[in-house]
Amino acid sequence: MNDNTDTPVTVLGLGLMGRALAGAFLKAGHPTTVWNRTPSKADQLVAEGARLAPTVGDALRAGSLTVVCLTDYQAVHELLGAADSELGGTMVVNLTSGDSTQARDTARWAEQRGARYLDGAIMAIPSTIGTVEAVILHSGPRADFETHEATLGALGTVDYLGADPGLASLYDVAGLAMMWSVLNAWLQGTALVRTAGVDAATYAPFARRIAAAVAEWLPGYAEQIDNGSFPAEVSALETDVRAMAHLVEESEAVGVNAELPKLIKAMADRAIAAGHGGEQYPVLIEEFSKPTEG
Amino acid sequence: MNDNTDTPVTVLGLGLMGRALAGAFLKAGHPTTVWNRTPSKADQLVAEGARLAPTVGDALRAGSLTVVCLTDYQAVHELLGAADSELGGTMVVNLTSGDSTQARDTARWAEQRGARYLDGAIMAIPSTIGTVEAVILHSGPRADFETHEATLGALGTVDYLGADPGLASLYDVAGLAMMWSVLNAWLQGTALVRTAGVDAATYAPFARRIAAAVAEWLPGYAEQIDNGSFPAEVSALETDVRAMAHLVEESEAVGVNAELPKLIKAMADRAIAAGHGGEQYPVLIEEFSKPTEG
Repeated sequence: MNDNTDTPVTVLGLGLMGRALAGAFLKAGHPTTVWNRTPSKADQLVAEGARLAPTVGDALRAGSLTVVCLTDYQAVHELLGAADSELGGTMVVNLTSGDSTQARDTARWAEQRGARYLDGAIMAIPSTIGTVEAVILHSGPRADFETHEATLGALGTVDYLGADPGLASLYDVAGLAMMWSVLNAWLQGTALVRTAGVDAATYAPFARRIAAAVAEWLPGYAEQIDNGSFPAEVSALETDVRAMAHLVEESEAVGVNAELPKLIKAMADRAIAAGHGGEQYPVLIEEFSKPTEG
Repeated sequence: MNDNTDTPVTVLGLGLMGRALAGAFLKAGHPTTVWNRTPSKADQLVAEGARLAPTVGDALRAGSLTVVCLTDYQAVHELLGAADSELGGTMVVNLTSGDSTQARDTARWAEQRGARYLDGAIMAIPSTIGTVEAVILHSGPRADFETHEATLGALGTVDYLGADPGLASLYDVAGLAMMWSVLNAWLQGTALVRTAGVDAATYAPFARRIAAAVAEWLPGYAEQIDNGSFPAEVSALETDVRAMAHLVEESEAVGVNAELPKLIKAMADRAIAAGHGGEQYPVLIEEFSKPTEG
């Protein structure tokens, strides 16, 4: 049976993000129980209709679903560990930030105590929680996600990634790497054109257009990776690297930072040294998949 | 008076790209004269209706507009320098790859010889020339661009960037930095999720969605740069850097390359060390605008 808006929910941890999560559940009409080490953090939520649980055990018993949002996984273990005997039969959705190993370990730990467990990652800032803009990633048993998908949907756009509880963390940092990389490339470009007196607002639409266009290539390029075959249909690495040298030289010539350009070229140089100069860009997956040397 | 398809054009340099340019002019109906050091490269174009000029001087006199596409700027100077006396009154559009200093120097050099000069950069592969997909950037006197915009439009989507002839090169490398950065972030993410058995095709749509979403933020973030004010409306750098540490740690823990994650964190760490921890990401423009240290 799937959840509906009568489904009671619990939120453990009322930092800025936890309060936003509880607020979104309340707004969607769910009977919402909250708990926080410092109870006063719940004042506003209680005024909006939340129930403040006196203990973690009481909070866990109140909801069909308990969303946990704490500082780190250590805090999760301390908190839930203290209410160990209450975990049996609960459904925990852990949205605390952490890595994939912590997620997998915590899934095992919770399951050993009879709890059902989904690990999640919030790709959003608190102010967007409860809107489609807030993307929340989930991984763990598919049946558990599907049972609670409607309830979790009160928090934002919910994505299910797969049974491995480490997936939410992996996709989260992968997505952040994309976010910062787009921003850094835009900053590199902005720094370059500002040396010619072009302002950031004039340059931004150009950067936006390139980023959006390249984003569309990714599914096609992914096929090359999955096939393990990288024919130079568009261009060969040994051609690309000449333009990379231009990027490095231009950055140095106009006196802006050249670390990002140099890293771009270094990765390609390494793939060429490994014999891939005649192949296409996605062959760099081999360099990106190797541990950093030295 | 603006050009029309009767306007005679000349293409100097018939490498893979030069041949594509000449082919696109022919297809659009322009009387097209070509020249190349090795004349046999013109065979196919002559079969399609191009005229092979016996000398560079003859080629320059034949077109209302001469597009130059050679290996590098040194080749441009050697070629046009040898036909120095023929340059007066010509309109040169130099699409050879180079940097902004070379573009500005060559513009001055050409103007001293009585030629009009636009510098350009081709953001496309030869097979897309003649389609809207091929973006060709131009910089130099606006009036010259406007006179020849329709003719140049036969080559692809033409962009005019401004009077400074160095702009086409700067935008070109800036755009390439964005292209490789999106690809590298996608490769980093793909490498991360593949450690959990997720294939590249499964991950690619997620990366595409993030890249496209972040691209939309750029015009708003550009305002912060132009205003020189970086209030933490979305999040503060000191918060971001904790997630960057997760990205580095996760990459190292699962055994993939961590150089890109480390560079992301290093740039942010430096901005925080400079006192910007409470400000928002675009404040990193200050780090990107500084020459690389050491």
